[in-house]
Amino acid sequence: MTASLARVQRSLGDPDLTYPLFPPLTAGCPGTSTDELAYPLEVDYAYDELSAGFINPARGSGLDRWAALLPPLAAPGLEEGATPLVEAGDGLWIKDESRNPTWSHKDRLNRCTVSAAVHIGAPGIVVASSGNHGASAAAYAARAGLPCVVFASAGMPPAVSSFLQAYGAVVLPVPAAARWPLMRRVVEEFGLHPVSNLTVTHTGHPFGPEGYKTIAYEIVSDLGSVPAAVFVPTGYGELLYGVWKGFVELRRLGVVSRAPRMFSCESRAGAPLAAAFAAGTPTGRVEVAPNDAYSIASPVSGYRARVAVRDSGGAPLTSTDAELRAAAETLAHAGLWYELSSAAGLAGYRTVADELGEGPVVCIATSSGFKDRSVGLHPAAELAPDWPAIRDQLRAAGLQT
Amino acid sequence: MTASLARVQRSLGDPDLTYPLFPPLTAGCPGTSTDELAYPLEVDYAYDELSAGFINPARGSGLDRWAALLPPLAAPGLEEGATPLVEAGDGLWIKDESRNPTWSHKDRLNRCTVSAAVHIGAPGIVVASSGNHGASAAAYAARAGLPCVVFASAGMPPAVSSFLQAYGAVVLPVPAAARWPLMRRVVEEFGLHPVSNLTVTHTGHPFGPEGYKTIAYEIVSDLGSVPAAVFVPTGYGELLYGVWKGFVELRRLGVVSRAPRMFSCESRAGAPLAAAFAAGTPTGRVEVAPNDAYSIASPVSGYRARVAVRDSGGAPLTSTDAELRAAAETLAHAGLWYELSSAAGLAGYRTVADELGEGPVVCIATSSGFKDRSVGLHPAAELAPDWPAIRDQLRAAGLQT
Repeated sequence: MTASLARVQRSLGDPDLTYPLFPPLTAGCPGTSTDELAYPLEVDYAYDELSAGFINPARGSGLDRWAALLPPLAAPGLEEGATPLVEAGDGLWIKDESRNPTWSHKDRLNRCTVSAAVHIGAPGIVVASSGNHGASAAAYAARAGLPCVVFASAGMPPAVSSFLQAYGAVVLPVPAAARWPLMRRVVEEFGLHPVSNLTVTHTGHPFGPEGYKTIAYEIVSDLGSVPAAVFVPTGYGELLYGVWKGFVELRRLGVVSRAPRMFSCESRAGAPLAAAFAAGTPTGRVEVAPNDAYSIASPVSGYRARVAVRDSGGAPLTSTDAELRAAAETLAHAGLWYELSSAAGLAGYRTVADELGEGPVVCIATSSGFKDRSVGLHPAAELAPDWPAIRDQLRAAGLQT
Repeated sequence: MTASLARVQRSLGDPDLTYPLFPPLTAGCPGTSTDELAYPLEVDYAYDELSAGFINPARGSGLDRWAALLPPLAAPGLEEGATPLVEAGDGLWIKDESRNPTWSHKDRLNRCTVSAAVHIGAPGIVVASSGNHGASAAAYAARAGLPCVVFASAGMPPAVSSFLQAYGAVVLPVPAAARWPLMRRVVEEFGLHPVSNLTVTHTGHPFGPEGYKTIAYEIVSDLGSVPAAVFVPTGYGELLYGVWKGFVELRRLGVVSRAPRMFSCESRAGAPLAAAFAAGTPTGRVEVAPNDAYSIASPVSGYRARVAVRDSGGAPLTSTDAELRAAAETLAHAGLWYELSSAAGLAGYRTVADELGEGPVVCIATSSGFKDRSVGLHPAAELAPDWPAIRDQLRAAGLQT
């Protein structure tokens, strides 16, 4: 295993402020955060000690390929990462994150956050999630032999309930507003390591986006170049920031000469980042209208997302459920079935496609189609095995005898 | 794209009998099959024209890496294959086929079968399946721009119904006994290309196992050696035979010096291959008792499976639902959540583990956990956000304040 070059935690609120690498500051930057606004931290590395050939490592698989520029990977992996870029025509590529161990991008984050828990000797982890984040955390905790507590919502899709329970976690569905106070209390009284957010505006775990940045490494390794733009389904913006950071690092290392424009793709039912841009504030807070994009529709944004969109020359984009459904249908009819939130990248791309210049474009698809609320609700009724009726149905579908 | 070296179809009923590569003989070997027993065909290649370095190709991703020893890949791919081997301790490896484009091993088969449909100019494909096979076929047909008709069962798990419908296929749930007669009629009257079985004992599509053999190539490429034994969830045995054929080819090519023992892992509720071995017959037919391993519990076996187990020095193994559940729980608690049928490899391995000699062992896990009947049936009830009660629940789970 390649040694980690991670050295300190650095504040995004004031980049001159650094803290020791451990323990991870899961309550945000102590030096710059206020009661209304929490600034995240990120990990800084001894980049000048990196050996040549980083982008094409001969050894390691999955995230382990990139261990030098990740926090210490103390937790055992599940071969997360190394997901394919699937061609979607006209210079458009889909980064298929449903091909991870728990079938979402969250595995990249949780390999890093559960590694932190193992590294500091925490007696377990705790996470507030009703979806991919929680299931992925539970899987990595199980693999590391750590207990995992998941504060979920009773309103989660039925399949997701099975998903969360499968890995042997303690799943506690509680009212949504109670999840974060309970999580803080579990952290304080039981000493469990939190792998999801604890702060008023989103900061999350400082090691989480480090896992996501490997997506940028893989894109450059597979495409052989930097895309012109990347479209990212965006809730809190951890994925968005992580991918951006990966490109920035490759530029700093001289592997590539530029970084792509980063577009945040939110649900219009709750688009706090777009609201933050409109208001000129570091983060945003909104009321979330009813919608089906439950993995991304968030009432609050994180500062990281603003930095990535601003510094990359991107823009905050939003899509309605109807636009998400249209994008999801296009993808499924190209053989790629994703949950509705995962289609936000393509939906966002469609809103600005005409204004983009030359060069390949990557949309990140985060998760498989099994997790939506509508799954399993519409079983097809049995037909009588009556040939004339079936023949007519096939003809109506455009088939010819 | 590397050119295919596929040359002829060869009968498994009489290996001296060959037929042109196209059209694929989807009704089994015309020269050796009888009304009671159908012999499959397989593809033969110009092995002596293969260039050196086959096992470590510099170009191509997914199945395209191995295009020389596959039928012509005329249908566009979805980056199927290249799935990881996940360590499970003590020399045991899990080949995680849930990491494919539609989250099962079936994508390897359908890339090849839909390619056949494209190659011969078929107006569409038809498949009888209530699960992974049908969804995968629908995805590859969609990607190739071909209509797809799926004859399903009304009793399929609810999530699987959504899965089949997602890709835009015409899904027709009909009584189980009517599926094959209807499928044959659709083939005859509409000219659709069948990508699942049409014969009395199972032969399936002659190109299907060719896709599966890439699993053997990947195992050798990743392990750097041949495993001592491979344990394969077995319904009709196409996967089993395909993986075996891949090892045999590598031995023939001098890439490896031996092939592993192949163990078929059936559901004890319906184990026609074990019955065939017990009776000394080429294939078996059994009554299937009620069970939850719906992806493998089959009333009829195929001749291919018998050949693979016999020629490799393996054995036919069976497991009860309870043994499958225990194996699935072990895997989930190691971070790997599969459908019940997918745990048959590990369950089978456990029945003979003590008798195996030295050397790594691979269990093939075929598909993700989202597809079982029990998924979504047991949502957790909401708890009051009452700290003392939650604290007690965490203590009961072994956590300490």
